[in-house]
Amino acid sequence: MPPFRRLIRFLSKDNLPHYGDPLLPPHTTDIRAATSARLITGDIHRSPTLTNTILPITRLLSPLAPNDVRSVRGLGLNYAQHAAESKMPVPAYPILFYKPTTALGGPGDDIPVPAIAQEVEGVDYECELVIVIGKECRDVIEEEALDYVLGYSVGNDVSHREWQLKRGGGQWGLGKGFDGWAPYGPGIVTKEVLGDAGKLVIETKLNGETVQRSSTADMIFGVRRTVSWLSRGTTLKAGDLIFTGTPQGVGMGRNPPLWLKHGDKVEVSLEGVGTCENKVIFENKSAKL
Amino acid sequence: MPPFRRLIRFLSKDNLPHYGDPLLPPHTTDIRAATSARLITGDIHRSPTLTNTILPITRLLSPLAPNDVRSVRGLGLNYAQHAAESKMPVPAYPILFYKPTTALGGPGDDIPVPAIAQEVEGVDYECELVIVIGKECRDVIEEEALDYVLGYSVGNDVSHREWQLKRGGGQWGLGKGFDGWAPYGPGIVTKEVLGDAGKLVIETKLNGETVQRSSTADMIFGVRRTVSWLSRGTTLKAGDLIFTGTPQGVGMGRNPPLWLKHGDKVEVSLEGVGTCENKVIFENKSAKL
Repeated sequence: MPPFRRLIRFLSKDNLPHYGDPLLPPHTTDIRAATSARLITGDIHRSPTLTNTILPITRLLSPLAPNDVRSVRGLGLNYAQHAAESKMPVPAYPILFYKPTTALGGPGDDIPVPAIAQEVEGVDYECELVIVIGKECRDVIEEEALDYVLGYSVGNDVSHREWQLKRGGGQWGLGKGFDGWAPYGPGIVTKEVLGDAGKLVIETKLNGETVQRSSTADMIFGVRRTVSWLSRGTTLKAGDLIFTGTPQGVGMGRNPPLWLKHGDKVEVSLEGVGTCENKVIFENKSAKL
Repeated sequence: MPPFRRLIRFLSKDNLPHYGDPLLPPHTTDIRAATSARLITGDIHRSPTLTNTILPITRLLSPLAPNDVRSVRGLGLNYAQHAAESKMPVPAYPILFYKPTTALGGPGDDIPVPAIAQEVEGVDYECELVIVIGKECRDVIEEEALDYVLGYSVGNDVSHREWQLKRGGGQWGLGKGFDGWAPYGPGIVTKEVLGDAGKLVIETKLNGETVQRSSTADMIFGVRRTVSWLSRGTTLKAGDLIFTGTPQGVGMGRNPPLWLKHGDKVEVSLEGVGTCENKVIFENKSAKL
């Protein structure tokens, strides 16, 4: 068991990044509400030490430093009702794709929309339960899968539908991998604190209006099955992140479609973890490309 | 310009991994022929220093330490004749997928075939030119793309066709991502030494018999276009690897199909770089999974 209950990365008054265990006010489980944290020192995967030093939080960062994450996996069509709205059959096996670690972002970070993603419409949101691997593993059976899970976060698997589904030749690498297109946070809640991740309210608000709202109970591959499946023949490393798919309500599934635009505020929330809020910023188009 | 001409990682008599610049015998460009190397010290990306220390090579390793690689990208259907044998149209844009860094291997390493990949036939070879990024970049135009390339290697994008194309729901993540399914080597040749990577003989030998033989001139997206395309909206990091697709002759394209089996010796070769040889080892099936 890790020495902390929750894990955040944050700037304090020294303007340096620290790991910490946030001190939550009473009657809330949203990590965003914390204004201070107990400092955690040491290698976050091998030797985290919870100290008695309490630091004020001036800004929350992505919960793990990008260098502390080796791989970011994502599942497609893992909610029964989302598979239906996408007019796709419920998958027999997990549909696995990868995002580069350069796609990671934290709460409060912008979601930059680069020129290539402005050529045609299609920027979409996807709120997702994020599994954080705590210990290296391979070929894990379902019954033991939770032994290798550190905890959970909530993320936005931002996706450009045209590049993901059409221009990418059917592979989702291009349309889901842009810089900052995997913000997550506000922190990680250990499995000991969160308990069963299979019956949590998950939702997206776009400019304050609820656009996705479901329960992780609708997931086709739950946490244990997902970790077991993805570990088959493949070593999962401490710090690996698994974005476990999104429920119904994405912009693509609406008539007319609802695409993210410059200045939009997107909040993804998971019960027991909190909210990761990000702003969509269309970048100036490069004259050269 | 880096201080070295070629880059290898190797064990010496101390049985520790080192970076080095291999000393090639006259009249060969195959890095495998080197028996000693000049030691390189310092962070390989930020401050590599070529020393005067010469060490014997007892074993070649994957050219970059897995921790010195952030992302492994692959292109699909990037050779005109391979697209034809796959009965797929020539893509208008690069078809991008990712492999996890746990898939990396080096010359002489086994290609382990896990239980999940033995459930059904379909293990296949793919010889590929591998681009090694030398300097962080984003939104690079084609004319400047080579400024960010360190050099080239040759790799095998090992693929399980059933998991890649059918059971993976159309995404190639599961079928191409198993541990050790991206061996490359025997080293990296800098672009200054290799010159134009767009007209090199590339081939695969299976148990000594040539099964793929083509030229990188048949690539649809060449090195400059590939780096420029993949950098759009996406930061490429020093040490990132790009497997650039395979020519015709894969096992899937044959009648009957030719699948790799236990004990097979697979050699992928690239003119000016050398040969990466690996043995296929079917793992014992886990009783639990």
